[in-house]
Amino acid sequence: MTQRLYEATRIRGLSVRDIRFPTSLRLDGSDAIHHDPDYSCAYVVLFTNAGLKGHGLTFTVGRGNELVVAAVKSLAHLVVGKELKDLLGHSMATIWRSLTSESQLRWVGPEKGVIHLAVAAIINALWDLWARQEQKPLWKLLVDMEPEDLVETIDFRYITDVLTKVEAVQMLKDMRKGKEEREAFMLSNGYPAYTTAAGWLGYSEEKVKTLCQQYMSQGYRHFKIKVGHNLEDDKKRCAAVRSVLGDEMTLMLDANQNWDVDEAIEWMKELACYRPHWIEEPTSPDDVLGHARIAKELSPLGIGVATGEMCQNRVMFKQFLQAKALTYCNIDAARVGGVSEVLSIYLMCKKFNVPVCPHAGGVGLCEMVHHLQVWDYISVTGTTEGRLVEFANILAEHFKTPAIIRNSHYMPHRTPGYSVEMHDKSLQAYEFPYGPAWKELYKQGGKYKDPATAKCPLLERPNQDTTR
Amino acid sequence: MTQRLYEATRIRGLSVRDIRFPTSLRLDGSDAIHHDPDYSCAYVVLFTNAGLKGHGLTFTVGRGNELVVAAVKSLAHLVVGKELKDLLGHSMATIWRSLTSESQLRWVGPEKGVIHLAVAAIINALWDLWARQEQKPLWKLLVDMEPEDLVETIDFRYITDVLTKVEAVQMLKDMRKGKEEREAFMLSNGYPAYTTAAGWLGYSEEKVKTLCQQYMSQGYRHFKIKVGHNLEDDKKRCAAVRSVLGDEMTLMLDANQNWDVDEAIEWMKELACYRPHWIEEPTSPDDVLGHARIAKELSPLGIGVATGEMCQNRVMFKQFLQAKALTYCNIDAARVGGVSEVLSIYLMCKKFNVPVCPHAGGVGLCEMVHHLQVWDYISVTGTTEGRLVEFANILAEHFKTPAIIRNSHYMPHRTPGYSVEMHDKSLQAYEFPYGPAWKELYKQGGKYKDPATAKCPLLERPNQDTTR
Repeated sequence: MTQRLYEATRIRGLSVRDIRFPTSLRLDGSDAIHHDPDYSCAYVVLFTNAGLKGHGLTFTVGRGNELVVAAVKSLAHLVVGKELKDLLGHSMATIWRSLTSESQLRWVGPEKGVIHLAVAAIINALWDLWARQEQKPLWKLLVDMEPEDLVETIDFRYITDVLTKVEAVQMLKDMRKGKEEREAFMLSNGYPAYTTAAGWLGYSEEKVKTLCQQYMSQGYRHFKIKVGHNLEDDKKRCAAVRSVLGDEMTLMLDANQNWDVDEAIEWMKELACYRPHWIEEPTSPDDVLGHARIAKELSPLGIGVATGEMCQNRVMFKQFLQAKALTYCNIDAARVGGVSEVLSIYLMCKKFNVPVCPHAGGVGLCEMVHHLQVWDYISVTGTTEGRLVEFANILAEHFKTPAIIRNSHYMPHRTPGYSVEMHDKSLQAYEFPYGPAWKELYKQGGKYKDPATAKCPLLERPNQDTTR
Repeated sequence: MTQRLYEATRIRGLSVRDIRFPTSLRLDGSDAIHHDPDYSCAYVVLFTNAGLKGHGLTFTVGRGNELVVAAVKSLAHLVVGKELKDLLGHSMATIWRSLTSESQLRWVGPEKGVIHLAVAAIINALWDLWARQEQKPLWKLLVDMEPEDLVETIDFRYITDVLTKVEAVQMLKDMRKGKEEREAFMLSNGYPAYTTAAGWLGYSEEKVKTLCQQYMSQGYRHFKIKVGHNLEDDKKRCAAVRSVLGDEMTLMLDANQNWDVDEAIEWMKELACYRPHWIEEPTSPDDVLGHARIAKELSPLGIGVATGEMCQNRVMFKQFLQAKALTYCNIDAARVGGVSEVLSIYLMCKKFNVPVCPHAGGVGLCEMVHHLQVWDYISVTGTTEGRLVEFANILAEHFKTPAIIRNSHYMPHRTPGYSVEMHDKSLQAYEFPYGPAWKELYKQGGKYKDPATAKCPLLERPNQDTTR
């Protein structure tokens, strides 16, 4: 780290924007619970007095994005004005703690939901800034870090009963041998992906079959489809997809939390004949013990349990691992508190020998997670066995350095940073609620209404109300 | 229920206000994690076209309250305009589900943190409205409801593996015998309380001792003090308090999440000689399995484990119960999704034979929880054995019908509603950031600054920034 520069440089400002895309018009991303997602993000830029910027975001599905934007504003004072030396490197765990444990703000979390999504966007922007400062893609910044330095970016609070800092250092040291070879392998071969883009719940059976064929011809061998709304429909869709995929290809199913525990077990027994590789989010993302029971019941059928895209923090992941409640770990790059917290989850998964198969798609998730997974391969686990990264290429055109897929593999980025910088014209067009793309939608008079005209009556001064 | 009236009446508006009290000036409410709480609430009023109002709130500790207020606004369209028949009675579980599972908003929860606190305020206002409409205090509304009607106010999603609607009905039917006697007993004797008001962490040892004596003279026999910041200080405070309390009185300790799992066990072994009745919030509120281990280790020392004020929802409580991770359940009236969800937690606690000892204090919590606990005694468990309601009387003067304490017992309210209506002059004075009380504080020039002058630089249009 160029220490002198880090002392002279400070964050002089932060901007956050509410960016939304009208994806629900085409039912892209639709599932049993989120039937009309408008893929969105709270988009954060950190500005330094040296001219460098850091870009970070967190993903949402539309309404509610305004709350994450507001939470970023409530947290901004904790980073703005600070020097980089107090934010990056060995200070990262400290700044992370100050964001997640601010003595008043933590009450509306702690470490979960709106406030934690906001932390993710800010922390991701800090990591992006750091990687740009070092002129490395994020994965390479991580890979090149000494184990002793890397663990200083992680807050081990509440997880020391399963993983201490000392253990984590040893774990990383044990994997030093062969790092160069693994890096070279990644750079030439990339990391295997699976596609979800063929199987949204809002798509017709014909569309799903056509898309499966299309992705097969692009080299994909692993496919995920959405289930959980109606058992008979699910059987039909599974049968149709299997008829296209044949016996060799992998089929994953995703219920997006639609079932209770017993219901999940019974429903999946009905779908077992289609040989699903895993069932994702069978029930509430908060139900560790429920997932453990489902995993135990489905294991004899050869069906794994996957969850994580809505898993709120490392404390929950710790328990999912302790309780043998997940067979595959679907971390999300922006649901937990950004890169720093994600690293701790990868390390715990290594300890429990559970493969990480990150959640992606959405806005910017594909761009981020491949960095993490490439680091996992080179520095943590040394294997891609049982591991896949999700891919759903809906909004790639808005990113300056979108995910690069070659023969169904994510190719590691070589551009410095964390790859979430969006085009200025996209940010301008899709800023909600009055970017030009949104104004155009209101004018068209379809499902989207100008929020100003659709406001519900709020009486701001109830004490002046005389009807009582 | 007066069905005809419910059809004619609808919610014509909702107001929500950011109400904050500068309690941190006196260190009231300070603990190992929240060292400077400014007790606050998001205050919701529902207005009907018939002139009736419903008041509801959720409690926070200052910064972050603005996010809950914003979330209430994001949810308001789901209740405003609806008729009471589609909100109350058998519709309550449905409207609860529509608030907690709104297809886009749920992504920034689900059922946790900011968005769930906002649901709590709205749902509590609906229950208040219902109780006023029926001209009953909330506890009496609950007590008089037929079991089949009461369960229709609860969403059983994600808890059917431990409690079904049918079981819940039977549970309530089994307790019908003796209800009248128990109601009469409550009305004349009230529900036993313990006090936390003597033991905030910011108070000096002398102040704590004096307050203990004062509360003992008021009839209290159960005291809670804050620990977890420094072991030697804790020993001194425990010894000092025990010297005042003697051997007969009950001492509870509260660490407010300050420890990791192993640390909690070791620390509490050091404090066991002061015979604490329970240790509250020893570690992360999300760590079911961690609490289970702590409970197991401390059980031979006669120390129970209590948690719940930050427990996000019924799914987490379900697991705390399944894992034998809590000896006492500290439900909060506004952390989980309001009355409807709290009821399901009481019923699960009954099934697992775990006493509910509600979290109170804060803003309006004492006013709310006694309704729930009185219902528990009359309709659910029929006992006060091992059960106490917290009491910390900091802001009672702002409520129209503050909690009534007689000889250290909560006396059941007889006024219709859920008892959280605040005085208009309090709402006006303490509205944040520009109520007169706040303006006065800015003028005094102490720790509170006018937010407009303290704003951190946010660059709203980063694309027009030219420094790159």
